[in-house]
Amino acid sequence: MSKIIAINAGSSSLKFQLFEMPSEFVVTKGLVERIGLPDSVFTITVNGEKNQEVTDIPNHAVAVKLLLDKLTSLSIINSLDEIDGIGHRVVHGGEEFSDSVRITNEVLDKIDNLSELAPLHNPANITGIKAFREVLPNVPAVAVFDTAFHQTMPEKSFLYSLPYEYYEKYGIRKYGFHGTSHKYVSQRAADLLGRPIEQLRLISCHLGNGASIAAIEGGKSIDTSMGFTPLAGVAMGTRSGNIDPALIPFIMEKTGNTADEVLAILNNKSGILGVSGFSSDLRDIEQQAEKGNERAELALEVFASRIHKYIGSYAARMYGVDAIIFTAGIGENSDVIRARVLRGLEFMGVYWDPTLNKVRGEEAFINYPHSPVKVLIIPTNEEVMIARDVSRLTGV
Amino acid sequence: MSKIIAINAGSSSLKFQLFEMPSEFVVTKGLVERIGLPDSVFTITVNGEKNQEVTDIPNHAVAVKLLLDKLTSLSIINSLDEIDGIGHRVVHGGEEFSDSVRITNEVLDKIDNLSELAPLHNPANITGIKAFREVLPNVPAVAVFDTAFHQTMPEKSFLYSLPYEYYEKYGIRKYGFHGTSHKYVSQRAADLLGRPIEQLRLISCHLGNGASIAAIEGGKSIDTSMGFTPLAGVAMGTRSGNIDPALIPFIMEKTGNTADEVLAILNNKSGILGVSGFSSDLRDIEQQAEKGNERAELALEVFASRIHKYIGSYAARMYGVDAIIFTAGIGENSDVIRARVLRGLEFMGVYWDPTLNKVRGEEAFINYPHSPVKVLIIPTNEEVMIARDVSRLTGV
Repeated sequence: MSKIIAINAGSSSLKFQLFEMPSEFVVTKGLVERIGLPDSVFTITVNGEKNQEVTDIPNHAVAVKLLLDKLTSLSIINSLDEIDGIGHRVVHGGEEFSDSVRITNEVLDKIDNLSELAPLHNPANITGIKAFREVLPNVPAVAVFDTAFHQTMPEKSFLYSLPYEYYEKYGIRKYGFHGTSHKYVSQRAADLLGRPIEQLRLISCHLGNGASIAAIEGGKSIDTSMGFTPLAGVAMGTRSGNIDPALIPFIMEKTGNTADEVLAILNNKSGILGVSGFSSDLRDIEQQAEKGNERAELALEVFASRIHKYIGSYAARMYGVDAIIFTAGIGENSDVIRARVLRGLEFMGVYWDPTLNKVRGEEAFINYPHSPVKVLIIPTNEEVMIARDVSRLTGV
Repeated sequence: MSKIIAINAGSSSLKFQLFEMPSEFVVTKGLVERIGLPDSVFTITVNGEKNQEVTDIPNHAVAVKLLLDKLTSLSIINSLDEIDGIGHRVVHGGEEFSDSVRITNEVLDKIDNLSELAPLHNPANITGIKAFREVLPNVPAVAVFDTAFHQTMPEKSFLYSLPYEYYEKYGIRKYGFHGTSHKYVSQRAADLLGRPIEQLRLISCHLGNGASIAAIEGGKSIDTSMGFTPLAGVAMGTRSGNIDPALIPFIMEKTGNTADEVLAILNNKSGILGVSGFSSDLRDIEQQAEKGNERAELALEVFASRIHKYIGSYAARMYGVDAIIFTAGIGENSDVIRARVLRGLEFMGVYWDPTLNKVRGEEAFINYPHSPVKVLIIPTNEEVMIARDVSRLTGV
């Protein structure tokens, strides 16, 4: 029996989850928020009870020290020696990493070199890795990449029809994200369907504040909606998804913004927030749409209809589909969005049951028993995938 | 019996076709190329015979005068009085024009105001209109817009998930193009299918050097792949189609180009040309792919697979599809592309016959008789649509 901690470090946050392996029992989990800002918040859940503390946490190293202190001071573990492995989520693995990897100095350099492709994320991930190295230098650590699962995409899927040298020189291609989540739910779907994953064609809809769709054939990602960055694909909470690329120079001229400023608008002021005009949170939107707010209704339709079209597109991509999976915040909890996404797909063999669809946040089939295409809700679990990869790669 | 001339003016070209109505008999057709450049070329076909003349044609007014001179000097008509109506193709009608319209000063002003949305095209169209007005001031003229057919799209289809005020203030939305072609082939498909167009769900693939796909329900366009400009959607001869919008600032930084320069690369150096590295002409690409050129093979796959995915997407959009239509240069002539686009669509009821698919440039069904979804090749005819609209709107 061993203990493995899974870490997800953002620019001002750090999420953690401590597993007992191989049982995958969650010993504790928590979150550090507002790192580097006044009144940082540390939250940890022990035996289902939430402890919260507001204090100044100037950087990730301090956050990690505080976290490790708490693990012993709250008697979650007796000593730091009990931690056998650390798994770090890293956003961008480029073409370097098609699987998780044990972290060495060389690996760390490569992750650093990839920061150009994920300037907001990889540096934060590196900060998290270094903070743990400082405190627990001898505990094996593993990097688990958001992009790795999608490295199986063939060139016709990942290549943009841009001058080919942009791919060769600058690494411009579709990478895809949410890979750990798509991988988890696709494996879990195979279990629930009782069929070997090698025989399955799955469409996985990871719908959270960020959202991506993946076409998974024989357990391998062969296409996905996000692209070079997580901006592409469907409309999201605040992200535009795909737009006519000619709009960027047009918006620059109209608004007097620079290209980077327009990009920030596409990332932070668009999507559901942009269409509705008042919120990026789908729960607000659903509430207001029900009350007759037309812009909220429009935001729901824009969000759902683009996912709906991706499902048709990826069914065509795989010459058919065996199951459609919904996961992440919206995918697991919003029957309203699922209903709109699935509407009218009977022509391709999708027969779903509005009553079964009422479920929230738990594993469930929502198709009619006779439906050739199955429809599943599977709560995602990226943390357990990270812990499993630490086990697999370090032997702990 | 009357005579109507259909005009398509580009920035340095002018295409024309003279119809006898209502028979729709083509009396003559031709083309002026390299207007404003040395050694302009004037080509006119009479009774199947091609006349060509190389001469300097400094502007569209001179081109129009030459054309009208030729019509009488070659005895195609006896006098210019025989021309009863003129139809002009205009690229962008914005939200102003959801149908063709008789040209007045007010209409001309509106078309001019829309130049902002089509800076390369509308000014050329206006030049053509004005040139004819000068020579034939009393002949009724009609503008036929590339965007008009798509004005039936609902807001959930045409709205980008950008800040909503961009739509209100700047007219940023999906307009769609090739409308006259999509309209023609959808009406013709209904005829060939022997079914009322109101009952049909059609996917129309206009595949030329520019390419767009449209979802046409009950005779109305409800979605299309081109967007705010003709750059969006599938990969084309030299256009990128959809890419991750975040790539524009990234390419600007990498190459030192301005946003407008990057846009020019997306329009002129991308698509099939960009991927293959040697040609935007699909015939060259097919030839080289057959000889084993891998980049040519990749260009074919990139081009075909994105159209293939749009078909799945638009089938989902309409909750099924009754017929798929191929038109324009590539759509009418390339069995290779059609075969790759249609591959594996049996799951949605598309059963097509590789033998029938061998046809080039003529109206044909290429599905097996039992196929629930019909597949048609229909050579497009935008000119006859223009002539019909002139008839309808002017009574000649």
